[in-house]
Amino acid sequence: MAILQPIHNIAEILAQKNVKTAILCPGSRSAALTISLVRHPEIQTYSISDERSAAFIGLGMAQQTGDTVALICTSGTAAYNFAPAVAEAYFQEIPLLVMTADRPAEWIHQYDGQTIYQREIYGKHVKKAFELPSDYTHSDSVWQIERVVNEAVNLSQIFPKGPVHINVPIREPFYPTEMEKIEFDRNVRIIKHAHVEKKLSNEFWCNFKEIWESIDNKLIIVGHQHSSKRLNIVLEKFVEELGVPVVADIISNVNSIEPVLSDVFLSSKNENLKNNLKPDLLITIGKSVISKNLKIFIRNNKPKFHFHIQENGDLIDPFQTLTDKVEVSPEYFFEQLFEDLDIQNFKNGDEEIDFEFLQQWCNTNERAKKKLNSFIENLEYSEFKVIKSIIDKLPENSIFHLANSMVVRYANLIGIEKGKNIEIFANRGTSGIDGSLSSAIGVALKTNKIVTCLIGDMSFFYDRNGFWNTYLPDNLRVIVINNHGGNIFRIIDGPNKQPEVKEYFETIQSSSAKYICEEANVFYHQVNDEESLLSTLNFLHQKSERPILIEVEIDGNKNAEVFASYKKLFAEFV
Amino acid sequence: MAILQPIHNIAEILAQKNVKTAILCPGSRSAALTISLVRHPEIQTYSISDERSAAFIGLGMAQQTGDTVALICTSGTAAYNFAPAVAEAYFQEIPLLVMTADRPAEWIHQYDGQTIYQREIYGKHVKKAFELPSDYTHSDSVWQIERVVNEAVNLSQIFPKGPVHINVPIREPFYPTEMEKIEFDRNVRIIKHAHVEKKLSNEFWCNFKEIWESIDNKLIIVGHQHSSKRLNIVLEKFVEELGVPVVADIISNVNSIEPVLSDVFLSSKNENLKNNLKPDLLITIGKSVISKNLKIFIRNNKPKFHFHIQENGDLIDPFQTLTDKVEVSPEYFFEQLFEDLDIQNFKNGDEEIDFEFLQQWCNTNERAKKKLNSFIENLEYSEFKVIKSIIDKLPENSIFHLANSMVVRYANLIGIEKGKNIEIFANRGTSGIDGSLSSAIGVALKTNKIVTCLIGDMSFFYDRNGFWNTYLPDNLRVIVINNHGGNIFRIIDGPNKQPEVKEYFETIQSSSAKYICEEANVFYHQVNDEESLLSTLNFLHQKSERPILIEVEIDGNKNAEVFASYKKLFAEFV
Repeated sequence: MAILQPIHNIAEILAQKNVKTAILCPGSRSAALTISLVRHPEIQTYSISDERSAAFIGLGMAQQTGDTVALICTSGTAAYNFAPAVAEAYFQEIPLLVMTADRPAEWIHQYDGQTIYQREIYGKHVKKAFELPSDYTHSDSVWQIERVVNEAVNLSQIFPKGPVHINVPIREPFYPTEMEKIEFDRNVRIIKHAHVEKKLSNEFWCNFKEIWESIDNKLIIVGHQHSSKRLNIVLEKFVEELGVPVVADIISNVNSIEPVLSDVFLSSKNENLKNNLKPDLLITIGKSVISKNLKIFIRNNKPKFHFHIQENGDLIDPFQTLTDKVEVSPEYFFEQLFEDLDIQNFKNGDEEIDFEFLQQWCNTNERAKKKLNSFIENLEYSEFKVIKSIIDKLPENSIFHLANSMVVRYANLIGIEKGKNIEIFANRGTSGIDGSLSSAIGVALKTNKIVTCLIGDMSFFYDRNGFWNTYLPDNLRVIVINNHGGNIFRIIDGPNKQPEVKEYFETIQSSSAKYICEEANVFYHQVNDEESLLSTLNFLHQKSERPILIEVEIDGNKNAEVFASYKKLFAEFV
Repeated sequence: MAILQPIHNIAEILAQKNVKTAILCPGSRSAALTISLVRHPEIQTYSISDERSAAFIGLGMAQQTGDTVALICTSGTAAYNFAPAVAEAYFQEIPLLVMTADRPAEWIHQYDGQTIYQREIYGKHVKKAFELPSDYTHSDSVWQIERVVNEAVNLSQIFPKGPVHINVPIREPFYPTEMEKIEFDRNVRIIKHAHVEKKLSNEFWCNFKEIWESIDNKLIIVGHQHSSKRLNIVLEKFVEELGVPVVADIISNVNSIEPVLSDVFLSSKNENLKNNLKPDLLITIGKSVISKNLKIFIRNNKPKFHFHIQENGDLIDPFQTLTDKVEVSPEYFFEQLFEDLDIQNFKNGDEEIDFEFLQQWCNTNERAKKKLNSFIENLEYSEFKVIKSIIDKLPENSIFHLANSMVVRYANLIGIEKGKNIEIFANRGTSGIDGSLSSAIGVALKTNKIVTCLIGDMSFFYDRNGFWNTYLPDNLRVIVINNHGGNIFRIIDGPNKQPEVKEYFETIQSSSAKYICEEANVFYHQVNDEESLLSTLNFLHQKSERPILIEVEIDGNKNAEVFASYKKLFAEFV
């Protein structure tokens, strides 16, 4: 048996446990992992050099498939370059198996190259951190390796999904001898993890339905979450059959109902308008909410009851109004609730459903939408208008990756048309600008759909090494909104009043994406006005042999003006 | 008093404690720090967007000046992007003050944007991690902030220098009102830290000199360290007056004596040759040693005594032969020893110094050097030859930054001419490929000397965002050795025997540096042969209005052949 056989067997365990994609970052210390993963017939491997980008590409793949993706790196700071994506995966609940090769413990901080303190390096940003033994001679060590790898993969998939870290100290020699065949032990230990369904007691349902029936104004708010067909179906019923308004951000992937532009009209200073929208029973699901106005509205108008439905065990209360945490899946919760209410209605005879509260929300929303559309229509060439055009032209059944900072905020104000079946991804776990391009590439590598990444210039150049690999897929479309700086700082209140805004907040930069596109062999088009934008959008989503990037050149000062007039307009919305 | 006055006063404390350079990464959460540092008249600030590169630029500045450089970032994964440079700074003992803005503790993991677990995020890779209070209303909090900032700066400068982390939770509002003047309190608390000189007892010296006199074959090995004039002067005396050979890597900055190409001739399989070079008393100073052959030679030929002279309190034993750790400065140790031996000689009458052991080392070195030079001279265009030409043409009194992987290894084999007063920098703390370009830029920003960065293509493209800022200095010269992949994996034994070498180790990439140079307005020259290399090197170090980059295109397979023949040649060296 090869000395490194227990390491080679990791590939077999991963394959059998459905971890079939591995991102390999080059290095010697990790060679045994690399070679066995590459040689395993069931595992698809990618070699990507910049670990920061590599980890975000892996995250994008896992976002798209829901399956655990393995990330492998050599020892040293390589492991730290994974960290931004690991943190994002933790808060966004994306399953990653991070395996960092390491020197054996006796050589840590002994002046040997590429050695840092890797044990538990990701702190609280992984569900669990393991370390394998560096000696495999004792059979207990083999047992430990097999058990740990099983546990790590299981954990990454148990809800809430997330990243798990295994530090892998490896002694030399790292490489099999020339032409040595690596054997995979098909009988390697596999420990399965039984899926547990969490249900609520009859007692809970009795109490809850009592509240449900005693309260008129019920509201559902959906935060950031992956697309769920089951949830979309049942939420539609709550709106249409039970008259409960559902407010969802663009990143909530609720596409069965009209988008509610809550951030737009809740910015109004008109208290009458808002008085009619106050819920008495609030049910929230999902993770973070983009709309600051929505958060402030709820905080200022505390509902009598606020149930948060989420399996995640942390107590998270961004509205500061939570009364009940319910740790079951939202799908089960709403399906069960709907079914129970349905049976009850059948038994008791159809009760009159009151649609008034829903109508209040819908009417306000309709009026806001009209006003916003006419505002945008009359705009000159500026970001608000550009992003509206981009969203309008998105193809059906495609994927839309929204980068952070202004881009996702604009898109959230505009909303996405119902029924086009567009799935939204956004790295809102930590809302960093560091990996959006790479994540979108990862998503595109795992689907045949068109993936459109809408991204600002700062995020794009920050993560430009996303283009530094040989796998760029032809279904990738990138639209860079280039206002030559962090335009958000000119738009939000505060920095725009400071003399330092240009150099130290916006950080004016003159780069163009054309150079990196030329280097990476990506089709490049520049857009400078409305007309060229529209003609470019017309062919953007057609089939292409190479990925396409559109750089939308735009004046940041203009955007700031437009945004100020938008805010003024809706502050007075009645 | 402004609410954020205690935060503004941090700028005043830093200025008074000689922290006069700050790298500011854009963000809102850190605005109060940014604005006060920018407005402080004595602090020079730089705005750099990619935190990974920004931190390495700061590290380069601190490498060059020895002064603490402040790094400021906003909350979220920004802090993690600092981490690779923080780890490098820790192991290389570079003084950094890392200040990460954060949400107040009550908002951590409450689904608000850009929030991760920042407390103690750098683990063991900082000398100490602090967190400031987020309330400044109680006077004890103000006392705490002032005390902590004082302690942090002091710690960064106390030997061994290193990075210190302050997490800074800040509540809104972040920005002063329009036109509000920030006042700095000149009477802010300053707590100085007295410099302590560490001396050895008479008892130690008596014992040590007994050993010194009883042993014939004494050897000094110098690991990675910053340039020290005092040390260079005294080491020269040990060689010339006391006949003790001093073996130093290129990164040891020992430029007062002939470079000893130990890695070259210690690769010989001839045991007779090595028998004559075995020390009985070994004195080591500095940090890591590049030469693997030197490490193996010492491990296989354990000296009777091995003293390691270093103030760092960790017990580090890479040769596995350490008998005595002496925690004083090498300058004091050797100066005191030389003085004592001198006085003793004066008292006892000049004793005959035995130069035989030194002669053994010098002769072997001379023969190896001759052989190597003639080997290189006869080579076709290949890396070995190219790097020799580059080193030969380095200007006097300049700075040479060596990136990791093959480049630093080649340079260490070739050595650097005595007396040209060239200072060497290399990120050998963790030996990562992630920040060499940025570090060299940081060094160049803090000197008027020419700074030449010799770097491989993988390191260059990895860290290409080093060019994404508005501060690129005209004294910067970058030479990219572009063999289109991690050529080291084709050169070292092991991966070159694997079928995966090309895709998963070398990671063949086709990029050229010309695109990023065009984007960043850096003068670009491509070199494809010996002749164009030499003509380019002739003007490279002349005054220029912009930084200059030379891309040396070279065939990786050729390099591997050359390296194999070099190894063969010296395996048989007698």
